[in-house]
Amino acid sequence: MARALHAQVAALPIVAPHGHTDAGWFARDEAFGNPNDLLVVPDHYVTRMLHSQGVGLDEMGVPERDGSAVVQPRAAWRTFAANYALFRGTPSGLWLDHTFSEVFGLDVRLDAGTADHYYDTIAARLAEPAFRPRALFERFGIEVLATTDSPLDDLADHDRLVADGWGGPGGRVVTTFRPDPVVDPDFDGFPGNVARLGELTGEPTTTWAGYLDALRRRRADFRARGATATDHGHPSPATADLDPVTCQRLLDGALAGTLDAAGAERFRAQVLTEMAAMSLDDGMVLQIHPGSRRNHSPGLLRRFGRDRGADIPGPTDYVESLRPLLDRFGEEPDLRIILFTLDESAYTRELAPLAGYYPCITLGAPWWFLDSVEGMWRYRRAVIETAGFANTAGFNDDTRAFLSIPARHDVARRVDCGFLATLVTEHRLDLDDAHELAVDCAVNLAHRAYNL
Amino acid sequence: MARALHAQVAALPIVAPHGHTDAGWFARDEAFGNPNDLLVVPDHYVTRMLHSQGVGLDEMGVPERDGSAVVQPRAAWRTFAANYALFRGTPSGLWLDHTFSEVFGLDVRLDAGTADHYYDTIAARLAEPAFRPRALFERFGIEVLATTDSPLDDLADHDRLVADGWGGPGGRVVTTFRPDPVVDPDFDGFPGNVARLGELTGEPTTTWAGYLDALRRRRADFRARGATATDHGHPSPATADLDPVTCQRLLDGALAGTLDAAGAERFRAQVLTEMAAMSLDDGMVLQIHPGSRRNHSPGLLRRFGRDRGADIPGPTDYVESLRPLLDRFGEEPDLRIILFTLDESAYTRELAPLAGYYPCITLGAPWWFLDSVEGMWRYRRAVIETAGFANTAGFNDDTRAFLSIPARHDVARRVDCGFLATLVTEHRLDLDDAHELAVDCAVNLAHRAYNL
Amino acid sequence: MARALHAQVAALPIVAPHGHTDAGWFARDEAFGNPNDLLVVPDHYVTRMLHSQGVGLDEMGVPERDGSAVVQPRAAWRTFAANYALFRGTPSGLWLDHTFSEVFGLDVRLDAGTADHYYDTIAARLAEPAFRPRALFERFGIEVLATTDSPLDDLADHDRLVADGWGGPGGRVVTTFRPDPVVDPDFDGFPGNVARLGELTGEPTTTWAGYLDALRRRRADFRARGATATDHGHPSPATADLDPVTCQRLLDGALAGTLDAAGAERFRAQVLTEMAAMSLDDGMVLQIHPGSRRNHSPGLLRRFGRDRGADIPGPTDYVESLRPLLDRFGEEPDLRIILFTLDESAYTRELAPLAGYYPCITLGAPWWFLDSVEGMWRYRRAVIETAGFANTAGFNDDTRAFLSIPARHDVARRVDCGFLATLVTEHRLDLDDAHELAVDCAVNLAHRAYNL
Repeated sequence: MARALHAQVAALPIVAPHGHTDAGWFARDEAFGNPNDLLVVPDHYVTRMLHSQGVGLDEMGVPERDGSAVVQPRAAWRTFAANYALFRGTPSGLWLDHTFSEVFGLDVRLDAGTADHYYDTIAARLAEPAFRPRALFERFGIEVLATTDSPLDDLADHDRLVADGWGGPGGRVVTTFRPDPVVDPDFDGFPGNVARLGELTGEPTTTWAGYLDALRRRRADFRARGATATDHGHPSPATADLDPVTCQRLLDGALAGTLDAAGAERFRAQVLTEMAAMSLDDGMVLQIHPGSRRNHSPGLLRRFGRDRGADIPGPTDYVESLRPLLDRFGEEPDLRIILFTLDESAYTRELAPLAGYYPCITLGAPWWFLDSVEGMWRYRRAVIETAGFANTAGFNDDTRAFLSIPARHDVARRVDCGFLATLVTEHRLDLDDAHELAVDCAVNLAHRAYNL
Repeated sequence: MARALHAQVAALPIVAPHGHTDAGWFARDEAFGNPNDLLVVPDHYVTRMLHSQGVGLDEMGVPERDGSAVVQPRAAWRTFAANYALFRGTPSGLWLDHTFSEVFGLDVRLDAGTADHYYDTIAARLAEPAFRPRALFERFGIEVLATTDSPLDDLADHDRLVADGWGGPGGRVVTTFRPDPVVDPDFDGFPGNVARLGELTGEPTTTWAGYLDALRRRRADFRARGATATDHGHPSPATADLDPVTCQRLLDGALAGTLDAAGAERFRAQVLTEMAAMSLDDGMVLQIHPGSRRNHSPGLLRRFGRDRGADIPGPTDYVESLRPLLDRFGEEPDLRIILFTLDESAYTRELAPLAGYYPCITLGAPWWFLDSVEGMWRYRRAVIETAGFANTAGFNDDTRAFLSIPARHDVARRVDCGFLATLVTEHRLDLDDAHELAVDCAVNLAHRAYNL
Repeated sequence: MARALHAQVAALPIVAPHGHTDAGWFARDEAFGNPNDLLVVPDHYVTRMLHSQGVGLDEMGVPERDGSAVVQPRAAWRTFAANYALFRGTPSGLWLDHTFSEVFGLDVRLDAGTADHYYDTIAARLAEPAFRPRALFERFGIEVLATTDSPLDDLADHDRLVADGWGGPGGRVVTTFRPDPVVDPDFDGFPGNVARLGELTGEPTTTWAGYLDALRRRRADFRARGATATDHGHPSPATADLDPVTCQRLLDGALAGTLDAAGAERFRAQVLTEMAAMSLDDGMVLQIHPGSRRNHSPGLLRRFGRDRGADIPGPTDYVESLRPLLDRFGEEPDLRIILFTLDESAYTRELAPLAGYYPCITLGAPWWFLDSVEGMWRYRRAVIETAGFANTAGFNDDTRAFLSIPARHDVARRVDCGFLATLVTEHRLDLDDAHELAVDCAVNLAHRAYNL
């Protein structure tokens, strides 16, 4: 029965409303670089696993911040291949195997002995027109894909996509407003970032009102490039509802670099509530991705920068954190907040009850370390009974690894169909409903949650 | 094998030692009202799900506090029916389907097209003598059912039940002492409630000793109406063991409305320990239902009042919270505390270890959002290995929805039999033990835990 | 398929790198005492379950601290037998049944009626040479077993084992450095313990430098008796990186008994970081077993002492607690820390991400209340996808109950093979990899994690 359900959804278009691929790939449509730069370097799932077993990031070909030399791509690939057995039983292993087999037609196993065969085959393919970004995009059956971009980004890639008929509102490649660099006082270079935001928008970002106006303007710029959502990667989902004088004082402190940790948290908390207010005006969906203690290893951050795998989740409270925002906007019918978590203990305790009550709250797909076969099963089993299917946001792949997108959606569709088949078998769901819900989970819920 | 086990317990009497049905139904034995008032309005599982998808409580026929008009029952029922697909995969869906089919004999699916057919059929049945509360009680095979009542309730309904031979000690419908309105300083109207408690008992409730005496007297009044248990819905299971001077000061503050949040928490904490002390004297079982952040939506509370679905669980600590009480009474052989949780992360970490060590602690059934097929499986898998079956309290339905009682107990019995069958299949339990334990889980453990 | 995998590993030698058996048993190789003293008294899994149902520890034959009389072994055994049904569905039940059947050849069920038959049979067997500790050790196929000992222990038993060719580096029975009595200011008699440490080592343990030197010396003494690991049972995994002046002040306070709870926590936190520094020098593996609120019942502690079952886990943070240590040593390739938990909510949230990134972190086996069929399944399902197999430490039995060792390892091997078979069935793992990983989980990972 799971197979019959899957057969129905396997070929449906891919809706990818949240991820971190590079808009430039699709804007320029140039051939991808070498296999290692495409498949190893940008995928922190891969680099963290190798690192955990003592392989240095330099050995994987990850560039250092100071420009120090790293190993050559083929040498790095051989290291990866020799350690490929580390991925047995992991989602990365599933995704990579799927990519090797389905995208590149490789039919032997990757290991030290086949490393060069893999490298040469993939490199040869990447040089072919059929393996350019747009060709793969179409081959993968992607209907729409959202990138995430900073308000400081000039959006030139998205402008090019708009000009080509690939981007813009309703387009195939759209952007997402991800303002962390200008709303998180702990972000590298925050004061300069806010000053730059002022320059880009002509708003006086040293005043609270000007700062909010600048964010408002950039949201509009992003909407013009197809964005339907904002995204926030805060350490916690704390929200606040402070008076303007306090807000100004916090902004002053943030710009002066004098805020302590609690002050920075209050600043981010207030920003989330302001984002909700703006969403009510402009209709953008508010995504909250909280709970990661980023850059846990100061040594790694220094040498290789952000997003290299040294991010560790921590306990995340939702019920009290969201209260200030919800007290103000919780019953608004036109607001949509998509909540994510890295803390599964919140599924039945906080998240499903919140989504199952508040009209504005939708539960996001299993995220990051939970975006796996077991993680998706736990999500379905924990969430659906209280939140129902209708309060969930479907699947999103959240990936930097473009080639893994078909594999990730396929795994999600298989798990969802397996879950639905289990419900039917246990007489907890009718078969016709299961067929309808399989399509909802694959496509419709994402459309609806992201206003696509 | 699961079916064979279930066959053995399917027809056993229903023991319902904890719930929130209305004693007046059984005391007066009048026909229930219309289908919407019976099946939608009082069931906050139902109203919260509709609300989460933008249906207003007024559209469901839920009365507003200020008496504003709401829609007519039939119109509300049509709204419910049109949205019934929201309940696919939820326990409410299972319970409602069971009720429609088993209680009312309906054999088509509920949707917009069948809404009136459902409404008319159910309304017609409810007018028949066989659908009066006592007739249904007997048809459902209920052996004993406990309501929960406030110390401020005059217990007139229970008096009538005693007079009719239906209530009182050992009777079919008994009460439970639920003192939240007079022991929680944050409860609406607390000072007036305590004054009223004083009037009802003739005790000087402005002194700590008089306040405790008043509670003691009401406990006795409840026992005379069959109560074997008390029940406490605190935000946390905090307990305390304070000196009388401090207690008096807290009571003074609570009555003057000057306690801060920490003071209110200490007050409730001390009350739990006092309740344990009184339980040692009068033998009543102490139920603790902690961890709900009630009335999370101030807007809903203002318009529609308590218990309408806007309650969200939060993280709940047991191991430190219970320490003051356990330091004093933990090794008492004659005390029984039944602990519940909305925080599943405490199952293996705190609750099973506590129940598996302290003679006075028994684990309550999966509660509220966890009272579901998946929730019950997780409970069994998490709890039994450390606590054993003997330290669990069997099942209770905890419901306001009288008609769902057979469905809820049936679901629990099916899951328990499925779990036991799994243990036998994996050679972790002998078959004859599984048969014995199936009966224990269905009936005996509840009898024992609640002194029935 | 699970059976085929299990057939391959069932007879592999047992590697037991962490446990609490008595080195004296193997050093002296005398016959064990009576059945009750062997199987009931030292096993707090057993005593806590009986206690939870109102059986006093004195009735089980557990000696009181003040030497008061307890019941005779046979009477205690009868009590145990009469209550044996309490263990249905628990791991203790599985382990005991396995021991009764496989070690003693008993083929009837233990209950009140067979209590004496069991007692007499076991007692008779224990008097036979084939049931001496070393004979059983060999019959069980144990390759290596580590005890845990205090730095205040004279290690005479281990010296005897070294002399006999059974102990010492690479030997069959080795020790583990467990310094809780001299590094936890809350430990009973801490100041005297530290003074005794000074006497044993000739180091001035009232100075921070002398105190560290004393620990260093004892570590060397333990290594000479085969130890490859240290073990730390702190209430939390808090670490610190303080300056020497602060360390000296904390030591002064700890020795004077004037440290408050926070000070004691900082002291333990600093010790963990010092232990990591010493591990870098001497190569010992650092085991952290955090999260138990020990001696939760003051009454039990007073009458019967530590480790009698009154230990309750609590919430445990890793991601912030370990930061000071990891900031200093996290990227060291030659350090190995094995992390354990009693808080399953940390598996996917903190522990698998930590182990899947930091080269120095390995995840320990499911521990204590989680060392069960269900607990091991949850561990595998939660941990492997993010940490991979290579970042786990294999199985260890952590037991005081020597006779349960074969049963415990067999249960672990069965669950691991079941998990691997599931992965193969779901096309998430190749069959040849499953065979290789089954052996890794049974033997190789433990060898590697503990440098055996």
